Parts: sequence; C-alpha cells; structure tokens
Amino acid sequence: MSTQPIGVFDSGFGGLSVLQSLVEAFPSEEFIYLGDTARIPYGIKSPATVHKYLNQNLNFLRHLNCKAAVVACNTASTVLTPEDYDFPVIGVIKPGAALAAKTTQNKSIGVLATRGTVLSESYVTEISSIDPDIKVHQQACPLLVPLVEENWIDDPITNLIVYRYVSPLVQLGIDTLVLGCTHYPFLLKSIEKVTTNKVEIIRAGPAVAESLSKELYKNKLLTKTSLDAAPTIQLLTTDKSVTYVEMARRLTKGLRITDPELVEI
Amino acid sequence: MSTQPIGVFDSGFGGLSVLQSLVEAFPSEEFIYLGDTARIPYGIKSPATVHKYLNQNLNFLRHLNCKAAVVACNTASTVLTPEDYDFPVIGVIKPGAALAAKTTQNKSIGVLATRGTVLSESYVTEISSIDPDIKVHQQACPLLVPLVEENWIDDPITNLIVYRYVSPLVQLGIDTLVLGCTHYPFLLKSIEKVTTNKVEIIRAGPAVAESLSKELYKNKLLTKTSLDAAPTIQLLTTDKSVTYVEMARRLTKGLRITDPELVEI
Repeated sequence: MSTQPIGVFDSGFGGLSVLQSLVEAFPSEEFIYLGDTARIPYGIKSPATVHKYLNQNLNFLRHLNCKAAVVACNTASTVLTPEDYDFPVIGVIKPGAALAAKTTQNKSIGVLATRGTVLSESYVTEISSIDPDIKVHQQACPLLVPLVEENWIDDPITNLIVYRYVSPLVQLGIDTLVLGCTHYPFLLKSIEKVTTNKVEIIRAGPAVAESLSKELYKNKLLTKTSLDAAPTIQLLTTDKSVTYVEMARRLTKGLRITDPELVEI
Repeated sequence: MSTQPIGVFDSGFGGLSVLQSLVEAFPSEEFIYLGDTARIPYGIKSPATVHKYLNQNLNFLRHLNCKAAVVACNTASTVLTPEDYDFPVIGVIKPGAALAAKTTQNKSIGVLATRGTVLSESYVTEISSIDPDIKVHQQACPLLVPLVEENWIDDPITNLIVYRYVSPLVQLGIDTLVLGCTHYPFLLKSIEKVTTNKVEIIRAGPAVAESLSKELYKNKLLTKTSLDAAPTIQLLTTDKSVTYVEMARRLTKGLRITDPELVEI
C-alpha cells in the first residue's frame, strides 16, 4: 500500500486522454503528468534519441517519488523495455494491441495512427505476436493531431476528414478499431459517426488502466481507498508556450489539475 | 560572373515553392537545395537552437561552393543576420514584407503563417518598420502544412479549411495577403477561391527572386546566359524518410531535379 503518486508522460498533451482514463479507474491515486513540450514531436526523431528522452523522463518521474509510470506516448512506447527500470512502467502499445486482439471476432483490426507509428509497424507486430491470423489494416492520419490542437472538435470539417480516413477501413470489414495516438480519443464523437455500432473502438486509456491495475496490485502499490474528493493532479511541462498552456486547460476540463509548472529535465 | 551554384535551404520541403520561383527567374543558374529533414520542425525550437542550425546549414552550403544562399524557411529567417556571412544570404521575411508594404493601397495586409511565425510577430515588425500606418492582421493556420504533406491539393476539404482561415481576413478588408509559410503557395488555388480578385497574394518566391537578382548583380555573381536546357538541381536531405522522399518528388514535378541524396551536417 503506497500513497506515492503515479507518473504519466507524453511528448505533449495528447497523453491527457490517457490520464483521464487513469483518473476514472483510480480515483484515490495521486498523479503527476509530464508533457515534454520542449522536445515535441518525438515521432520524427531517431529511436536512439527517443530512447534517451524516455530514459530521462522516467528517471525524472522516479526522482519525484513516483511508484509507477505510464508512457502515454506511442513513439516512446515503441522503444520501452520495462525491465530496465526499478519500478513498474507501462507503455500504450502493448495494452491497446492486447485488448484489440481479445476484442476482434472476425480477426480484422483497423489502426489509426500518426505516420511515424504506422511506419514503425508496432501495432502490426504486437497483434501478430498474439495471433498471427489477425489482419491489421493501418491508416496514417497526419491531420488529426492538428485538428485536436485547433480545437475543431465535433466540427463539420473534422467529421469530413475523419470520414475520409476511417471509411476505407470500415469498408474493409474491420470489427475493431485501435486509436493508435493519444490525441485521437478527443475526436471520438467524429470517429463513432463513421464506425457506427459495427466497430468496437479501442482507446489506450482503459487498456492501460487495466494493465496498471494488475501491476499495482501485484507489487502491493495501490493506495488505500479514500472517501474524500479526488486528489489534485500536478501538471509539469518542459516548455511553457502560450499555445500549449491553453491546450492543456482545454483538454483537462473536468479534472482537478494544477496550472502547468515549468521543469528542466 | 560566376557559374557556382546558388544554395537554398529549408527545414523540410516547403522551400521547394521558393526554389520553383528562383528557377523561373534564373533559368541559367545551378541550384543546390538542402532540406534539413532530420531536424524538422524548426518552428517549435528556441531561437538559439534555430540560429545554430541556420549557421551550420549556411556553412555547409558555402563549403559546397555556393556563391549565394536563400534561407527558404520563415523560422530560420527570423534569426538571420546576413552580415555574419562572407557571401550574400537572403531570408524570406524581409522581401515578402517589403513587397506587401509596396503593394497595399488601403494599408491593410493579412498574413497567413504557422503558429510559431505568428507568435514571433516578424511580419508585423518588418511591415511596421517600413510604414507604421499599415495594419497587419495575422492568422495562424496549423492545418495547412499537413494538408500539403497529405497532398490534398485543390481538394474540397482543403477548400473548406482555407475558407475558414482566410475569409475573416477578407471581411476585415485586406487588399494584400502574405503567404507567410513556404508550404502555402502549393495551396494557391484554394486561397484564390476565397480572396477572388479583390486581394493581391504575396508569395515569398518572386519577392526573394527580386532581392537575389539585385544581390547577384551588385556582387557580379550572375552566370553567363546560356541557351542550353536548364541545369539539373541537386537535392540534399539530412534524413531520408520514405514520406519525405515521396513528398519531394511530388512537389518538384516539372523541375529537373536529382533524387534526394543523404548528407550529414
């Protein structure tokens, strides 16, 4: 039993969608969210560089006394080896891929992701290692992150763009769709307009929450259940640009979260 | 009179729109284009870091025997001091701003740019220093670069997005519109659908070509006019991702250009 916080990091603020799922799943836990906005985007950097950033961020969270950490960033998750750390660390790809493989009935899964994640084939590799009979259809969606950053949520233009990306996957007969980028859950309404009720949508957040729950239980790290209001979440960033501060506020509506605090890593 | 090449660089391939204008203006000159794709995007990096990259890229082009260089990147142009170099160097902001100030009749200019360029206020400062009575209305357009990179050119979705960005400026009564990002000229058709014939569009390319022409003439660096076909353009990149190679091919249609060659800077 431990009251230490759980650390969550992403290159930016897309990972706040994962944080939301974690707060729902663990209402009595404390969280620290780190947005490494000074070094965003990770997706176009070499694996060696991304690995260095991952290491630095995880060590930083460990020094802040975090009892466990979630890597809420697809690119960083592709180079994560949890065994390298002396505390439980969970990425977003394995839990999402596992949940998708468990969910599909017709063995046909779609994956929406950034161009970098599509090229890495991480979801294809992960899902195939679980069940080589599953067909994985990937779709790179470079416009979806800027649409979230523009806050064009449930907007007619966004709906058109999402339709263009998602409808070919639906026509291929997928019954499960992985949102392979932490920004995409903010576009869930638009995505569901295309998939209707024929396709199960897999978000990283709930899948990660399930994995984290097992890890915390196994390592006896869950906090005692408290009946008070949920604790305040601490928000840290490595670069305090006006744009990102505003975006963080918007994406954390409904969460008890501090104003972003600048840290050096 | 010199047959040395002219160097052009950008963080990526948006600067190819400037290269096109230069090739039209100087059909007998040789060009080397450098896309610093390993370190893209510049727009979110600190001025000190961008200045370091600018310096390295210009020295690299100088060592390749370039007689002059064009910085076809707005972010890098904001930290350029041409006097620091022993060969003529021209950025994109000053020529574009000067041409816009000369063009406007009603002293009302619109600027489309990335969020970084808007926050830097470079065009506002530059235009105000020429004529403080000119009103400059900026519009950040984060979706336009990914639209070009998706190749959704003259596409209904692109037209809708451009309409949303540009029509408020038209309603403000601008008579001149600066395309303040080198990617935007690839969307000219969509932009002109909104501005119609009421607004003069200022692209960096032709403005830079005029400045370069003066510099080359002043320094006696123009090549002898030849009647042969235009020389082949050498294309260099610092990272050879599949996406960017494909994009470079698409954006250089009609130019005699080599396949991208990987260089280390």
